[in-house]
Amino acid sequence: MKVRLRNPDREVEVAGGRRVREVLGELGIDPDTVLVIRDRELVTREERLSDEDEIEIRPVISGGARMRCRRCKAPAVVEVRRHNAAFCRGCFVRHVHEQVKRAIAAYDMFGPEDRVLVAVSGGKDSLALWDVLLGLGYLADGLYLGLGIGGYSERSREVVRAFARDRGATLLEVDLAQEYGFDVPTAGRKGSRSTCAVCGLSKRYVFNRAARDHGYDVIATGHNLDDEAATLLGNTLRWQTEYIARQFPALPAEEGLARKVKPLYRLSELETAAYAFLRGIDYVVEECPLVAGNTQLRYKEAMNRLEAASPGTKSQFFLSYLERGAPLFSAEDTAELHPCERCGQPTTARFCAFCRARAQILGERLGEPRGGDEQGERLGEPRGGDERTSPDRELARSLSEEVLPAEIYGGPAR
Amino acid sequence: MKVRLRNPDREVEVAGGRRVREVLGELGIDPDTVLVIRDRELVTREERLSDEDEIEIRPVISGGARMRCRRCKAPAVVEVRRHNAAFCRGCFVRHVHEQVKRAIAAYDMFGPEDRVLVAVSGGKDSLALWDVLLGLGYLADGLYLGLGIGGYSERSREVVRAFARDRGATLLEVDLAQEYGFDVPTAGRKGSRSTCAVCGLSKRYVFNRAARDHGYDVIATGHNLDDEAATLLGNTLRWQTEYIARQFPALPAEEGLARKVKPLYRLSELETAAYAFLRGIDYVVEECPLVAGNTQLRYKEAMNRLEAASPGTKSQFFLSYLERGAPLFSAEDTAELHPCERCGQPTTARFCAFCRARAQILGERLGEPRGGDEQGERLGEPRGGDERTSPDRELARSLSEEVLPAEIYGGPAR
Repeated sequence: MKVRLRNPDREVEVAGGRRVREVLGELGIDPDTVLVIRDRELVTREERLSDEDEIEIRPVISGGARMRCRRCKAPAVVEVRRHNAAFCRGCFVRHVHEQVKRAIAAYDMFGPEDRVLVAVSGGKDSLALWDVLLGLGYLADGLYLGLGIGGYSERSREVVRAFARDRGATLLEVDLAQEYGFDVPTAGRKGSRSTCAVCGLSKRYVFNRAARDHGYDVIATGHNLDDEAATLLGNTLRWQTEYIARQFPALPAEEGLARKVKPLYRLSELETAAYAFLRGIDYVVEECPLVAGNTQLRYKEAMNRLEAASPGTKSQFFLSYLERGAPLFSAEDTAELHPCERCGQPTTARFCAFCRARAQILGERLGEPRGGDEQGERLGEPRGGDERTSPDRELARSLSEEVLPAEIYGGPAR
Repeated sequence: MKVRLRNPDREVEVAGGRRVREVLGELGIDPDTVLVIRDRELVTREERLSDEDEIEIRPVISGGARMRCRRCKAPAVVEVRRHNAAFCRGCFVRHVHEQVKRAIAAYDMFGPEDRVLVAVSGGKDSLALWDVLLGLGYLADGLYLGLGIGGYSERSREVVRAFARDRGATLLEVDLAQEYGFDVPTAGRKGSRSTCAVCGLSKRYVFNRAARDHGYDVIATGHNLDDEAATLLGNTLRWQTEYIARQFPALPAEEGLARKVKPLYRLSELETAAYAFLRGIDYVVEECPLVAGNTQLRYKEAMNRLEAASPGTKSQFFLSYLERGAPLFSAEDTAELHPCERCGQPTTARFCAFCRARAQILGERLGEPRGGDEQGERLGEPRGGDERTSPDRELARSLSEEVLPAEIYGGPAR
């Protein structure tokens, strides 16, 4: 029997005549973390496979087996262990829509008249989000940011374009290299920030700018429950109280900063992947080639282990944070925002973190020398005197929705 | 080459002529989690072993190899990765003493005139603590509680008695079955609480009572950094804010409740084990036979994985909680304490949680019917009406220093 595995793509031969769970067991794969596909259909873990079958094992999804849909009692195709529930295709789609509706209502994220800009990377989460919002009748356009990560970025762009074309949806595109003169791999090599840091910084900058320039009311990103739980774990392991305070499903607009929302925060990675598959969304399954060793992945692993031993741990962690933890943390971030002298985007410093990073990457000097500072500013480096802390504070602010800047919009760093 | 492994005790034969780390690698053992002993001496991970060697691999300790003591430059025997340091025997003992002195000073735990009651289980942590306190000249007596867990409890008692005898130290003993009519295994079978819950409850009760009856100023328990980090993780995963608020290295005395302190909170499990070994303390290495599947162990595993990838994660988690997290959580526990009508120990209810659990285990009725309550009280069950929440609230209070009651004093549940 031929088995196609992903990340990296490879094929293995294993003996057939066994159940899906036995094959997964032999391959050392946790059935809760993959989707098993045969002839373009999901197969459940109790399904028997024959030697002639060809299957694809795709992370990350759960196939519920011989179970009945909680709602309509039809055969189930997806199991959601933390709810101790399984759903057929139609009812699962409804379940996802309802979770998103609930999220939007709980934080008054946006209304039917609001123009929503969905940050789409080509991955399962952001495309699922766009699909759900269109399905619910919201005015949702997409924004794709070309990061210049070789074939990976090209494939992502094609997937996003095809998605928009098929649905007659509006897609904005920004290419980092064309607009700003650098791509993410170059930035990682030349700047003082890590690749993931500069990628996250660029995303936040471009999204905010596009939302303002094109008159959108709110930016929606595809962060799911697993992302939020992992980020919260990272922030809590260091008790970074300012970051914890700002890790909220909806951040209000501030002077020059668009409102930001995460309508998928109630859905696990498994659910967004199942949704994307069941809705026939062609998404980029491969991971960003630059992301290896990302600490966020370690936190996800830790949460997944705890979840496996005790289903519901992840959602309890994040949702009980929202309920009981968050009220105790108040954002102490009272710094005034004013326009960056270079680009006009909001910043607490003279130049915004993006302009400083960009100048450093491009080897440019930013701004004129001022006062007694004859060296001018070497941007991207902390400045002396009273302002010593402001670039750091501002970076902290720019990162404050998520400590790990790679994880900004369901993008390549997933 | 003969290798003796512990928990469970077993011997394996492996090929010699290799370094310690290679042997550990073959056995799938993380070198940071074990002590490797040959001829009663620690050997480091770069040491070469011969076919004739007999070694013992004892959890949990780190052997630093070919390293020099940070302080005196003598060959090191213990490595503390999160400090990026290694120590010789003498300097390591000094390091442990200093960490304990620092803990005592930071929370003003007790002074040279105070009578300290050390809760000793026979495990590495509580005996190391007693040894350190005696070494630092404090007035420290021991208290051993016999839990009746078969040979395990018997061996623990012998170890504790031998420790006290060798040092001419004072040991109080309480036997749960003799004093209160039940042992822990019986309690686990007969009561409505889990074995670990009733064990923890009994420990807290007996310690507090002994401290009051014998005029001690403070109870000291052997909780180490790993215990505290794992408990904090469990509390934080559920955002149990009241428990988080009370997870402090020193809890002040209250009406009828003795002051409680944890002088080892700055030292990892690895450090307490190394200390006990290097000081020649004979301690019980085996784990409590009733503890399998304990959730606390899962949290420890999760923390250990994160620590392995990023040394210092554990201590950063707990120490940054103390610094930045704890001030945000204020104990909302304002319930009045008054004496239990049965035993006189403090409680928020009519009878204390221990008396209720005990009555349930022994099949007794506790107290007379009162008011309109013709059924009397079936204790250990929530009562109706206005008082419905008080047993729960009180149990919460009794557990509030640690959610997982098994982990109370460096005892069998470790």
